[in-house]
Amino acid sequence: MALRIARHGRGWQVRPSDILRVGPGFDLGGFDTSATPGFDGGKAAGEAAIATLGGRLSELQEKLYAESRAGGSRAVLLVLQGMDTSGKGGISRHVLGMVDPQGVQVRSFGVPTPEERRHHYLWRIRRALPRAGRIGVFDRSHYEDVLVVRVDGLVDGDPWLERYREIERFERQTEEAGITVVKCALMISPDEQLARLAERLERPEKFWKYNPSDIDARERWDDYMHAYQDVFDHTSTPSAPWHVIPADRKWYARLAVTQLLVDTLTDMNPSWPPPGFDVSAERARLGALLTERADADREPPASRRKGRRKGR
Amino acid sequence: MALRIARHGRGWQVRPSDILRVGPGFDLGGFDTSATPGFDGGKAAGEAAIATLGGRLSELQEKLYAESRAGGSRAVLLVLQGMDTSGKGGISRHVLGMVDPQGVQVRSFGVPTPEERRHHYLWRIRRALPRAGRIGVFDRSHYEDVLVVRVDGLVDGDPWLERYREIERFERQTEEAGITVVKCALMISPDEQLARLAERLERPEKFWKYNPSDIDARERWDDYMHAYQDVFDHTSTPSAPWHVIPADRKWYARLAVTQLLVDTLTDMNPSWPPPGFDVSAERARLGALLTERADADREPPASRRKGRRKGR
Repeated sequence: MALRIARHGRGWQVRPSDILRVGPGFDLGGFDTSATPGFDGGKAAGEAAIATLGGRLSELQEKLYAESRAGGSRAVLLVLQGMDTSGKGGISRHVLGMVDPQGVQVRSFGVPTPEERRHHYLWRIRRALPRAGRIGVFDRSHYEDVLVVRVDGLVDGDPWLERYREIERFERQTEEAGITVVKCALMISPDEQLARLAERLERPEKFWKYNPSDIDARERWDDYMHAYQDVFDHTSTPSAPWHVIPADRKWYARLAVTQLLVDTLTDMNPSWPPPGFDVSAERARLGALLTERADADREPPASRRKGRRKGR
Repeated sequence: MALRIARHGRGWQVRPSDILRVGPGFDLGGFDTSATPGFDGGKAAGEAAIATLGGRLSELQEKLYAESRAGGSRAVLLVLQGMDTSGKGGISRHVLGMVDPQGVQVRSFGVPTPEERRHHYLWRIRRALPRAGRIGVFDRSHYEDVLVVRVDGLVDGDPWLERYREIERFERQTEEAGITVVKCALMISPDEQLARLAERLERPEKFWKYNPSDIDARERWDDYMHAYQDVFDHTSTPSAPWHVIPADRKWYARLAVTQLLVDTLTDMNPSWPPPGFDVSAERARLGALLTERADADREPPASRRKGRRKGR
């Protein structure tokens, strides 16, 4: 019997990280992409929860930013993976859209450019890491180099185990540099994907999101699931675990990612930096300036909204 | 007598670019920072107009982004300058916050880092230009190198005319690369600044935004105004004019910048790219796949929201 009282946030029965994190024996084959694990409530409750969490996320990010301005180096990196139409772009728009754009850096990784191709596959990734105080979002990521690159046979040999180790090392270095990595894979069913692709063919303003090759990728669906399973088995570490998120219901995927970010930032516990100056002394200094200007104007200090420049 | 019927957008009596753009003989000395030029309406009407314009701005940016995905190279760069507390950060948060974060790149320019100092002052600027399809925001910019650097005497000699020419050349190259430059200076009165600084000393969560040296900068207010006047006189070009925006009223400054961006993007006239594929053929291909899956399931096609993976 499900608990009726939310233990963690409104509607969540368990901390989503606990239920969505890849654990030993995780099997993608039996994964239900239409489920809403851990959340007791439907779409309306989910969307209400997202709106509430948005304020919290925004405040936590602002604290992290303030911390960075005082010399802190911490940041968050959200890695988003998933098949075409799984909703990665929607996470950027609807979840990160609740945060000050100054604190967000979204980066999409498509087919490498000729310049990127001349470098190691992590080269473009390292250059895109978020600056201190920001939430970075990778819409696709270095994992493309063990997913599409593997399924499409774009490199010779069998470098996957080596790449997993390389990626693990890279993520450890990233964490050591102060960037907390949150990895989310959005999983949809083939049926759901088909419906979403069909939607893109309905209106001319959606055509640009459609690519005939997306259909070809569908034909290798099982190969992709196999590659994802291997990624989860080999690159889910205690400090940078994978979260596998059912994404047939967009509201649930957005809610889960929002809550994961809020929980991550809450654990990081950023705080308003202490003032690097004497608050009383500065208040006195400003007070004196206010009095001085009022005297100079030979009238009571202008009220906030009526302040005018006096012939300067 | 003011026109009573808005000619351009709700409440605007004139296109804001026409009234805010620096023209011949522009005199900062007589500039009223508390005015709301060109807009017939108060704060409530202004905020309603911003919300309406937000949807338009978001759609225009998405079109620009779509265009870039189809090979387009166009982008917009919003350059924000202004004294401390003039509201540059609020523009990022409240105006660009209405746009998909994937389409926005905000970059602040503070005191140069040791690495930046080893390069030409435009080095860090060039590296931060927005990618195709995005709206880039510079919160402070290359103009710091002819403003604070000049007022504080941070370089030898009198290189300002040379720098203005250099900046003009740089902006022309930027425009030639497809990036439309929109330059806005937010102007507040010394009284308004004092009130806003005092606000930052009221609550611990605002302390990090306060810097005692901001008060020192106030003592050189006239020098700053002189430096700004020179910047407007020398770097306002037909293709990248300066807009000087009264910013004592935050709502007006935000409205003006939103409308300037909407007008700029409307003039750029981005359009949904034509499909690079045969729409009918792709629709038929998807239709066949839908039928095939329905048959395989030996039941009617699953409805959108009930789609489930069938044992894959």
